[in-house]
Amino acid sequence: MCIVGGTGALGFGLALRLGRAGVPVVIGSRDPGRAQEASTRARERVPKGTFTGLGNADAVKDAELAILSVPFRNQSETLTNLRGALREGTLLVDATVPLAAAISGKATRTLGVWQGSAAQQAQEMAPNGVRVVSAFHTVSAALLADLGHELDEDVLICGDLAEDKAKVAALVKRIEGLRPVDCGALEMARIVEQLTPLIISINVRHKARAGIKITGLADA
Amino acid sequence: MCIVGGTGALGFGLALRLGRAGVPVVIGSRDPGRAQEASTRARERVPKGTFTGLGNADAVKDAELAILSVPFRNQSETLTNLRGALREGTLLVDATVPLAAAISGKATRTLGVWQGSAAQQAQEMAPNGVRVVSAFHTVSAALLADLGHELDEDVLICGDLAEDKAKVAALVKRIEGLRPVDCGALEMARIVEQLTPLIISINVRHKARAGIKITGLADA
Repeated sequence: MCIVGGTGALGFGLALRLGRAGVPVVIGSRDPGRAQEASTRARERVPKGTFTGLGNADAVKDAELAILSVPFRNQSETLTNLRGALREGTLLVDATVPLAAAISGKATRTLGVWQGSAAQQAQEMAPNGVRVVSAFHTVSAALLADLGHELDEDVLICGDLAEDKAKVAALVKRIEGLRPVDCGALEMARIVEQLTPLIISINVRHKARAGIKITGLADA
Repeated sequence: MCIVGGTGALGFGLALRLGRAGVPVVIGSRDPGRAQEASTRARERVPKGTFTGLGNADAVKDAELAILSVPFRNQSETLTNLRGALREGTLLVDATVPLAAAISGKATRTLGVWQGSAAQQAQEMAPNGVRVVSAFHTVSAALLADLGHELDEDVLICGDLAEDKAKVAALVKRIEGLRPVDCGALEMARIVEQLTPLIISINVRHKARAGIKITGLADA
């Protein structure tokens, strides 16, 4: 699997946790040099992990699953640049949040995305045969990167096909302390993407690194 | 305190739990007869509780705190009808969710509210001196009414004044197993109100009665 934008805070945190869990991780970046530098840093933190640093297009070329973890400002441009590289059948896991910070607004507010959500924009822009699942909006990048911290929270997953969500859920389960929760169709990303600014607002008030857990589930 | 729309599922569940916690509850309804009937039912379920049934206007007249728990379709009309009855200083706790079900749409979708959220619409419509706090969107009505069920989840609270939120938090804490979490300004209700359709979507998929817990808080 690969992480497009794997040098960013969330992407790098996921790379560390997945690498520690024994998942070979390709860290993608616009700048191949920065990707290589990040993979070196990752190996220092997780010596047993398998990390490779590549430019985004090379990173996704052979990926069965690619996590898209870029600022909303760059999401559209990144997907345009990857049109020729993403191959049919690749599962694209979108973690983008349309924070108003993209236009210098508040991080507790979002922008309206014409398609409904950043994930739906990704689905519209992705080449034929590339399906999008939405995930990883409520997990703190800082806590992911703090490998001494024991995670105990949920990852909310939205997508139109159960088999796609099952693949993402299996990946999530590799990370100790994270529980995948199927939240329904991809259009529900419109709501789940809003949880990031909600958590940011809670973090400000409580000086915390909050996450989310869904209560009352027997079968998640 | 009183519950406007206290004969509805959420309102009645809150009435039972608050009554059992020793809080005298005035159950309000458009139809005073139905309010009285609900208060009788509440007394049967919680014999030690103090329940009164009144028409909505009479219910709010002397209330320091009034929970507004009506379908979105009726929120605006209810507030218009209460304009003369709500007195300055009453804290209005809005639990309204702008579900698309109000116009026969899906319960996993919401309507856009011009003011941003149902709570902000309530604030715009409330008489001068009546401040609105938003709460109780993620707690299952069925679990509230099932008094044998041990609750263990959060109530997300949005409001512009810390002192108002503290009053609502104190009320929430009266109900065993519910933890109040300050989520920020009233405008954050725009996000928190979306959690109801998210939970409905999760419930459908997991055959559950889901709720929400915020992880990582020391001071909530």
